[in-house]
Amino acid sequence: MEYTKPLAKLIEYFQKLPSIGPKTAQRLALHVIKMPENEVKNFAEALIEAKTTISYCNICFNMSSSNPCEICSNPTRNKNIVCVVAETKDLMAIEKTNEYNGTYHVLQGLISPIDGIGPDDIRIKELLYRVNQNDIKEVILALNPSVEGEATSLYLNKLLKPFNIKITRIAFGLPMGSELEYADEMTLTRALEGRIEI
Amino acid sequence: MEYTKPLAKLIEYFQKLPSIGPKTAQRLALHVIKMPENEVKNFAEALIEAKTTISYCNICFNMSSSNPCEICSNPTRNKNIVCVVAETKDLMAIEKTNEYNGTYHVLQGLISPIDGIGPDDIRIKELLYRVNQNDIKEVILALNPSVEGEATSLYLNKLLKPFNIKITRIAFGLPMGSELEYADEMTLTRALEGRIEI
Repeated sequence: MEYTKPLAKLIEYFQKLPSIGPKTAQRLALHVIKMPENEVKNFAEALIEAKTTISYCNICFNMSSSNPCEICSNPTRNKNIVCVVAETKDLMAIEKTNEYNGTYHVLQGLISPIDGIGPDDIRIKELLYRVNQNDIKEVILALNPSVEGEATSLYLNKLLKPFNIKITRIAFGLPMGSELEYADEMTLTRALEGRIEI
Repeated sequence: MEYTKPLAKLIEYFQKLPSIGPKTAQRLALHVIKMPENEVKNFAEALIEAKTTISYCNICFNMSSSNPCEICSNPTRNKNIVCVVAETKDLMAIEKTNEYNGTYHVLQGLISPIDGIGPDDIRIKELLYRVNQNDIKEVILALNPSVEGEATSLYLNKLLKPFNIKITRIAFGLPMGSELEYADEMTLTRALEGRIEI
């Protein structure tokens, strides 16, 4: 199969994106050819603008085009609570609930010895510095319920204990709308362990 | 949820692409921010280059940056056989088999009265002109086995009959590796109808 060259190049670029296979890459590239020219130009500009203007917040390491980021510089957010997440996408997921009014700390990864990621490779010392320098009353650990997430939570808990602040972890258990019958053993175990009085 | 502005814009553009929902758009945009800057620039340039240099071949209406396209101008391709497809992506699927050495004719759609697409809205007259002006010995109809594909095939068969050329249609039947037991009735019916002597 011989794609015309500029098309082959575009397909290749789409294919480098996560979760985009050869079929989807081809579909996206063909769609681009059919888009109005100014739309394509705007898309291309949006790519470059996002890449060149967005960096990491010096306080919480969230992605932002301003520094400090929109959340850290928002006077209505509660600076005494810090929610620790692994990645910006986790922060975004929590923001979408509209239920949290504190600030964040994006670790930019999780401890994972298998992948060669140790405590010094993620933003742990920056978190400790923040807790040490500011009047922080609660740290919420909101890391994935995976081996890496659990290990990182345990490690952080140990390091944060000496500061004498409240350390909490988000609840693990049955997702809303799910059926107990189909829950896996690990989830059910955690749901039982995490039972609360009503 | 307040995305930082350039990120929101990029997510919006990704979301306009086919089969990209809000979650995938967010993942792709976050990935772009983490890509090396020159990679992002190359991607943006590839978008614009593909859009501005690719148009339709004047002979077969395949997408190409050259005119006639790579296939029509390839001296080793058999110009006496024309395979009629609905879209460039169908042409690409056939090219990937490496089994076909003729030329194509991309209709750029199928007759679909429900969607208001009549015979004049797709490249049918261009096909008839081609068959009339050139020494074409066989037209292969390779349209989807859908209502629209069948209707278009019937219509084309009627128009092409007077030219006294061979008109064929690709086979419909059981896909390779499938199981007869799980085939739907329509497919089995077509497989029986299309049985060939062995």
